[in-house]
Amino acid sequence: MDKQNEDDISSHREGFLHLTRIARRKPKRSWRYWLIGRPLPSADAPEQTIGKAIGLAVFAGDALSSVAYAPPEMLLVLAAAGTAAFSYAFPIALAITALLAIVTISYQQTIYAYPGGGGAYIVSRDNLGEIPAQIAAVALQIDYLLLAAVAASSAAAQIVSAYPFLLSYRVAIAISLIAVIVLANLRGVKESGIAFAIPTYIFMLTTFLVIGVGFIRYFMGTLGVVPNPPPIEVINTTQPLTFFLILKAFASGTTALTGVESISNGVTAFKEPRTRNAGITMIWMSAILAILFLGIVYLLGVIGTVPSETETVISQLARTVFGGRSILYLSVVAGTTIILILAANTAFAAFPRLAAILAADGFLPRQLTFRGSRLVYSRGIITLGIIASLLVFGFRARVTALIPIWAIGVFLSFTFSQLGMARRWWKIGHLPQGEEVRERGSVLHYESGWATKLLVNGLGALCTAVVTAVFAVANFREVAWMILILMPLMIAGLFAIHRHYRDLAQNLSLEHYGQPPPSRRHRVLIPISTVHQGTLEALDYAFSISDDVTAVHISIDADEAEKLRHKWSLWGKGARLVVIESPYRAFLEPFLEYVNELCAILQPNERLTIVVPQFIPRHWWHNLLHTQTAFWLRFMLLNKRGIVITEVPYQVH
Amino acid sequence: MDKQNEDDISSHREGFLHLTRIARRKPKRSWRYWLIGRPLPSADAPEQTIGKAIGLAVFAGDALSSVAYAPPEMLLVLAAAGTAAFSYAFPIALAITALLAIVTISYQQTIYAYPGGGGAYIVSRDNLGEIPAQIAAVALQIDYLLLAAVAASSAAAQIVSAYPFLLSYRVAIAISLIAVIVLANLRGVKESGIAFAIPTYIFMLTTFLVIGVGFIRYFMGTLGVVPNPPPIEVINTTQPLTFFLILKAFASGTTALTGVESISNGVTAFKEPRTRNAGITMIWMSAILAILFLGIVYLLGVIGTVPSETETVISQLARTVFGGRSILYLSVVAGTTIILILAANTAFAAFPRLAAILAADGFLPRQLTFRGSRLVYSRGIITLGIIASLLVFGFRARVTALIPIWAIGVFLSFTFSQLGMARRWWKIGHLPQGEEVRERGSVLHYESGWATKLLVNGLGALCTAVVTAVFAVANFREVAWMILILMPLMIAGLFAIHRHYRDLAQNLSLEHYGQPPPSRRHRVLIPISTVHQGTLEALDYAFSISDDVTAVHISIDADEAEKLRHKWSLWGKGARLVVIESPYRAFLEPFLEYVNELCAILQPNERLTIVVPQFIPRHWWHNLLHTQTAFWLRFMLLNKRGIVITEVPYQVH
Repeated sequence: MDKQNEDDISSHREGFLHLTRIARRKPKRSWRYWLIGRPLPSADAPEQTIGKAIGLAVFAGDALSSVAYAPPEMLLVLAAAGTAAFSYAFPIALAITALLAIVTISYQQTIYAYPGGGGAYIVSRDNLGEIPAQIAAVALQIDYLLLAAVAASSAAAQIVSAYPFLLSYRVAIAISLIAVIVLANLRGVKESGIAFAIPTYIFMLTTFLVIGVGFIRYFMGTLGVVPNPPPIEVINTTQPLTFFLILKAFASGTTALTGVESISNGVTAFKEPRTRNAGITMIWMSAILAILFLGIVYLLGVIGTVPSETETVISQLARTVFGGRSILYLSVVAGTTIILILAANTAFAAFPRLAAILAADGFLPRQLTFRGSRLVYSRGIITLGIIASLLVFGFRARVTALIPIWAIGVFLSFTFSQLGMARRWWKIGHLPQGEEVRERGSVLHYESGWATKLLVNGLGALCTAVVTAVFAVANFREVAWMILILMPLMIAGLFAIHRHYRDLAQNLSLEHYGQPPPSRRHRVLIPISTVHQGTLEALDYAFSISDDVTAVHISIDADEAEKLRHKWSLWGKGARLVVIESPYRAFLEPFLEYVNELCAILQPNERLTIVVPQFIPRHWWHNLLHTQTAFWLRFMLLNKRGIVITEVPYQVH
Repeated sequence: MDKQNEDDISSHREGFLHLTRIARRKPKRSWRYWLIGRPLPSADAPEQTIGKAIGLAVFAGDALSSVAYAPPEMLLVLAAAGTAAFSYAFPIALAITALLAIVTISYQQTIYAYPGGGGAYIVSRDNLGEIPAQIAAVALQIDYLLLAAVAASSAAAQIVSAYPFLLSYRVAIAISLIAVIVLANLRGVKESGIAFAIPTYIFMLTTFLVIGVGFIRYFMGTLGVVPNPPPIEVINTTQPLTFFLILKAFASGTTALTGVESISNGVTAFKEPRTRNAGITMIWMSAILAILFLGIVYLLGVIGTVPSETETVISQLARTVFGGRSILYLSVVAGTTIILILAANTAFAAFPRLAAILAADGFLPRQLTFRGSRLVYSRGIITLGIIASLLVFGFRARVTALIPIWAIGVFLSFTFSQLGMARRWWKIGHLPQGEEVRERGSVLHYESGWATKLLVNGLGALCTAVVTAVFAVANFREVAWMILILMPLMIAGLFAIHRHYRDLAQNLSLEHYGQPPPSRRHRVLIPISTVHQGTLEALDYAFSISDDVTAVHISIDADEAEKLRHKWSLWGKGARLVVIESPYRAFLEPFLEYVNELCAILQPNERLTIVVPQFIPRHWWHNLLHTQTAFWLRFMLLNKRGIVITEVPYQVH
């Protein structure tokens, strides 16, 4: 420890004494210490950057894991028209891949435009204004909340597929997974780690293996259909195969796209040249996602998989390809489970960070900007954990039920992000050459190809808006109506919080504020019920802050009051005593009446302090044996200006 | 209003100014006003006394109502040996009547010995010592709690007997009755009222009528057996008719005695000569009780009643005697229902009064001695209402299940009361002639017949002790074991409370207490996060109580700290500023560390006040948007001597 830290640095500057010291004591060991690890000083904040190979692993979890739930969601919609409609799955998957390409190219532009990280909120805030920004913020919050719930539920479904006897514990498993992820995040997960790379690459390996072997056996003609398939979920009536049904299947399949945007938020994590590295990594990721998605959808059609709540399609595929529940089967299911857990983890990295940005902008409680002992946004992590658990519990860990809400959040944020980018190109196109505009998230200067880029982002916005609309309409009756109620409420909540902080700042502002003249007179009241050591302690305190001290006794019993008067004559140090007879036996009301009378004649520069002798018992439950006068006084007099309530504690030892 | 009340009375007396005023404002109208009536001033406490006829009505409810449940409880025990055993019911009833006579004579002596009221607690306290007194207190509390539950359940059973379609609402009916009684008692029931006399005499009239008509029809030979009797409760195996079974039936039947002691508690309510009036009233009451009890038991045997949960024996008796559910039948059942409600009401009169006595002796929270706006012990009434409702709910309003616990409480308190009286005669017998000893509840002087009286009370104690023991043994497995767990816990609780108050009084006592020298130095700390109007308000307050003011800023961000320093130089009025860098981003801990350091060097007569600027928002939920520094500081520094924490509220308008 250097000399500076050893001693307080003190200086006389600008006319007042000022000292700087460093809190030296390390936080105490406690149960938290054991649970989430030793506290980390602020100086330990990591500055590490990552390359493309690790970057792919870190950011791909969310995107790649979607191959676990996007195909069955698509099949489930088609199943409404009978299993024959499954033949439309692959063509729809091709269309989804095309959309993936559009979105990927769109986001490439975001990465280059926002090298400091360009999430939907930042892009909307800088380009679309306050209200669209808050809509995007709410969409993103829904996205992350549901991502955690969906990924945990889907991971639980994988576990249950491999071990069917766990079926009835699915909800408990999903919530336990969330709890583990919460703990890991409270400890502080180093995102930039080999710990993430290994499971991601294992997943890629095993998934490519099952697809590869599947195609080899398919071409060799030895790939049969799923043995003992799970019962197909009953759909009340067989619907005709309408265009809307195909559109709905397409929308359900687009959940494969969730997570592709994640790299655009995390550009700063990459090694320089970071925009280039991030951009290339994103293209790799999209390419891998496209191959896995198309491969899986194709093979699912070949082997006649049925979407089911009791066995995931990945499990059906793996045991058909590998001919039973072999070690290879288990490794595929395990790989999928782990990538889903990583996907849930993504939400726990992103949500608290978004909440902190919103809180710093004054749209969420300021406390969300504080980093906990492990340098993570603990409050955001815990909030997410609780809400995600409630969602899992409320929807009984059913992925199909959770997906539409989630997808609306995801695609709405896509839409606003792309719209924001389009608006940004428009602004750039209308800037004079050579001029530079500095916004909060990025720097704008004229670029020649702005019109093309505007078209790309515009197309992205259009496509994602259509998908959002299809989700909203197709699932309106089941769950999407919730969004219609929830989103306006959440947006109103964000603005209510913002208004509060803004009003408060104005109210407390020192601009145009004249220093008021100092207080002249300070009256002190002490409510007393009897005279004992605690009373004298309070009386001594009262005299230490003012000479104008009045003891007030609320009398219910005249004999008691007379005794008190006598005792006060012995111990009261000459302080005035006011005895108020209370014919209705109330304590607080007569006292408040007296205080209000005094208040009414209080001059602007006079102060009134109520000093309450407060006995501090050894055990908390002893408080039940005493009336909590100070608490009630504080509560009743909260809104009176110029009154201060002071408890003088008296500890019994 | 006379002149004295109009003006404050002020006087200089014994060297200090002292004022007396009367709180003039009447309490505000509120929902309570509507629910329980206008507040009553203390001067309104009733001083009315009652004669024998009204006295009988007021105190007989508890005792006479027992004819509704004592006979079936007895029959239920005998039913275990088959319905043939019912023929033992009348002989057992005769034995119970003998016991009633013994207890009545015993209590006659209590009435004359304790003209100021001699409940089991007071008699035990004055004669047996602290521990027996608290055992008696707990027994009485159990008595009253269960009385309320039993009487309400039994009243509900009567209602359900008359209107069988209400059977499934029995628990709800019983709890509603309790709620009504609670409300009536919160309004303040005038015990000494004609309102009590009318229903009691109606009950006596209708019950005598049913017994009278029953016997006339019996002698005329027209009284048949119960038509359509309810199904007899299934008893698993038919037991042999052992002596223990008869003893158990006897014990169950002694529940007829519950409530006979009530007059001994309420001697003060009678007109002078009050002991004589009370004594005679008690004999009347016991005589009426004996006639009703014997008459009912005899007729029940004649008509072949079966004890049942679905129809009470009173209902069976009335419809057999009156030949169906006529208006006479209904008036008998209604009379019984009302007397049971009055019995429950007895508990609501007695329990809060006992609780207030115990609280005044320091064995229960002091708050129980406060009388509410209607001059009643509201807290005790509400406590009893809640516990009785929970008992009714927990035991599904089944009288048979509640009776044993209750009876143990009742007979245990009988035993201690009689034991105390016996001990009192012993003391009296050993007093020198002419000497007078003044105890808290009564005055002792030598009486010649003390040995006989000792024998009478001793016999009473023995008999009631045997009944207690039979109850405890016979019902041990079902419910009596609860008592064995509950009573020691309750007694320990009473003593824990007592110890607390005693220790506190010793600690706070001014005996041998030297007035400490007044404080010399007063340091003030203001924790600040930023400089705004609220901070300046707090700073002004700090300077109004001391010249030694230090602002403390916990710094997480060096730039912010630098800005603060600059602002402080403009607005800080020269107060010292200490900036504490917090490497672990904690706010409270570094501040507490600093406070602790200052505390360590604090001299006995120095004080440290922490002035916390506290922003008071317009809406309570705004508090969620701010860290509650003052709350946490108060919580953390509660046990530090010499530190006072003051919130200076700053209201935003």
